[in-house]
Amino acid sequence: MEHRFFLKGNLCHTPVLGRLEVHENAYLLCEDGRSGGIFAQIPPQYAHLPVHDWDDCLIVPGMVDLHIHAPQFAYRGTGMDYELLDWLKMRAFPEEMKYADPAYAQTAYGLFADALEKSATTRAVIFATIHREATLCLMDRMERTGIVSYVGKVNMDRDAPPELTEPGEGRAAQDTVRFVEEARERAYTRTFPILTPRFIPSCSDALLEALSRVRRDYALPVQSHLSENPGEVELVHRLMPDAAFYGEGYARYGLFGGESRTVMAHCVYSSEEEIDLLRKNGVWVAHCPNSNMNVASGIAPIRKYLDRTLRIGLGSDVAGGQTESMFRAVTDAVQVSKLYWRLVDPQAKPLTFAESFYLATKGGGSFFGQVGSFEPGYELDAVVLDDSTYPHPQPLSVQDRLERAVYLGMDRDSIREKYIQGRAARTI
Amino acid sequence: MEHRFFLKGNLCHTPVLGRLEVHENAYLLCEDGRSGGIFAQIPPQYAHLPVHDWDDCLIVPGMVDLHIHAPQFAYRGTGMDYELLDWLKMRAFPEEMKYADPAYAQTAYGLFADALEKSATTRAVIFATIHREATLCLMDRMERTGIVSYVGKVNMDRDAPPELTEPGEGRAAQDTVRFVEEARERAYTRTFPILTPRFIPSCSDALLEALSRVRRDYALPVQSHLSENPGEVELVHRLMPDAAFYGEGYARYGLFGGESRTVMAHCVYSSEEEIDLLRKNGVWVAHCPNSNMNVASGIAPIRKYLDRTLRIGLGSDVAGGQTESMFRAVTDAVQVSKLYWRLVDPQAKPLTFAESFYLATKGGGSFFGQVGSFEPGYELDAVVLDDSTYPHPQPLSVQDRLERAVYLGMDRDSIREKYIQGRAARTI
Repeated sequence: MEHRFFLKGNLCHTPVLGRLEVHENAYLLCEDGRSGGIFAQIPPQYAHLPVHDWDDCLIVPGMVDLHIHAPQFAYRGTGMDYELLDWLKMRAFPEEMKYADPAYAQTAYGLFADALEKSATTRAVIFATIHREATLCLMDRMERTGIVSYVGKVNMDRDAPPELTEPGEGRAAQDTVRFVEEARERAYTRTFPILTPRFIPSCSDALLEALSRVRRDYALPVQSHLSENPGEVELVHRLMPDAAFYGEGYARYGLFGGESRTVMAHCVYSSEEEIDLLRKNGVWVAHCPNSNMNVASGIAPIRKYLDRTLRIGLGSDVAGGQTESMFRAVTDAVQVSKLYWRLVDPQAKPLTFAESFYLATKGGGSFFGQVGSFEPGYELDAVVLDDSTYPHPQPLSVQDRLERAVYLGMDRDSIREKYIQGRAARTI
Repeated sequence: MEHRFFLKGNLCHTPVLGRLEVHENAYLLCEDGRSGGIFAQIPPQYAHLPVHDWDDCLIVPGMVDLHIHAPQFAYRGTGMDYELLDWLKMRAFPEEMKYADPAYAQTAYGLFADALEKSATTRAVIFATIHREATLCLMDRMERTGIVSYVGKVNMDRDAPPELTEPGEGRAAQDTVRFVEEARERAYTRTFPILTPRFIPSCSDALLEALSRVRRDYALPVQSHLSENPGEVELVHRLMPDAAFYGEGYARYGLFGGESRTVMAHCVYSSEEEIDLLRKNGVWVAHCPNSNMNVASGIAPIRKYLDRTLRIGLGSDVAGGQTESMFRAVTDAVQVSKLYWRLVDPQAKPLTFAESFYLATKGGGSFFGQVGSFEPGYELDAVVLDDSTYPHPQPLSVQDRLERAVYLGMDRDSIREKYIQGRAARTI
């Protein structure tokens, strides 16, 4: 395997929030899976290195999906007339029950992993179901895609059908420990367990308490949902009347950032206190605009979160979101921010394309370390797009070409190659 | 050519607003370009007719795009950080100028027509530019797609670059007359001229007055823009201070429904009086949710318009909208209606999928006559979708399959055939 080579093409990335940097016909040095920087010409000392010449293609950082539910992929784009809590009951839970059957999981997760493999996504943070065996099957399958991912066996012990609850906090925690240990035994190189309490309505205090010990003992990162929907926020307030805000329900069990990397999906209705704690604890917000429209949640105030310097990435949130396309997430984030500006807060300037692109790459990428940019030292995840499949009669700048590729969703049919940690994904 | 045949497959349509009717493995009789009804089995008297058997495919009415700008197709998905009036100046006008060159128009409109041909659209109402020759070239090209369309040479005489204004109302009207006469001489069978004052800010009173005579003399239908954006509405108020509302600016010149079929794009900010006149005059509203997000206009109150029994269809509004996909328009309409309900008016129930599907078919179709449904007597426009290209691990009802096909945008890659007025479009 090559340890050093160049990628050549029209390199586009956003090293700084809001600034799209374009290097036409430039060379990106890859050294042991990381960027060695961008060069207009190959420096003499590197003249001997191989060049993967992508000609006039666009080359962008891989997309980071901070929030996606693998078992919901099967029914994406259906049942869209429901609101969140009904949708969970009518669509999500009945489907998730099926993953008690490892054979079903094998088939369904195969389709999920195939789709992610074809997409522009190079990093993902994934919900599975409560089923240990099925979740490990998903991890096996994800490992083979080349995508770097965190995968969580879900925990829930209330407010769901009996088939999806784990009675007794002891057993749920034990099963999660077993999941983590088995995942580690499999010695994946890019697929890792993450602690996954579904959300407060599904998790008793006793369960959260038990999970907090698992988190500490195994130094696990954490993912969950936060302040997605007014009905849900109210429900949490009833369930935990002494918590000052929803996030405190996680925080009191050490499941809200701080010493463990944590990503919270949605944050549409976070109070000022919650925002302060998100920031103080360095929690990542997974902004999922498509899902927030589909289940009628609303629009997350991302401009405000950017102003408060929160950590923010984007999530497809399949199947609240209808598609795994992160290009779609980029444009949805811009579009809903325009509606937010127009309808809710004229002070909240809409996101620019470059800002939203940053969220989908470097913003979410930071959850994985130095990821989502072509700056020297960053892990080299890249997507090669051949936008010539969409002809145009006039000249277009590379910047316009990139915006067009993302708005037209060319991640669907125009990806020529994907590099993850410096390796061509098709040959992993 | 066959005059009678059956289409067989999973037939889905919305004869009534909000009710999706599904006929699995059923037969749709086509007689001289119109529906002869749906049958579970072939009636004995028709046993001799040929059957186009589409097996397990979904068959739906063709999509009706009530608002699309052909010359803007070239730059769709770019410049999306602009708001409406800046976007016109920076992107729309510079591109539209190029259509003074017939060779450029030939190339660019060729790409546009190719894309529409591949799409699920079977009917369209189209803006061109002010250029007569280029607009006729577009009509030639549209005629060959098989799509039934209205195409308008645009009129504007102010507030645009000199290259895009027609100085002197006399000359503008004369040129429009010449356009209409030349279009009619070409004896298209499915491509018709439509009167197209761009919008009030671009049209002096004198021009509107002159166009009103052209409309009468040639019994033309009319298309324009209405109440899209707060800045635009305010501008119209300054330009026509004596008009009680924006639409009155058209109405006083007989360009607002009544005896001439009229479609007005957007209607995001229509006042109560304007809504009353839209209804009284039977004006079609072209709801363009994607565009209304992209140029930060807002969300049109479609639930209210449905309650007031306005005529409503959907428009892609390329390139305010980024795509010609009408499946995208269907889902965007549902999504923004959910945000409207959540953020603006809790009384305005979100659109259901079936309601939005109706708008894209029978709703907009009524502009063309009996179009957009498989009911007996309706012109037979149909799209055959092979959704097996998107595998799923579980059984799905036909209804879920249709919703999924639309949400996943399968009009992009899964159309097997398109029938327009009873003819297979691929063999027209």
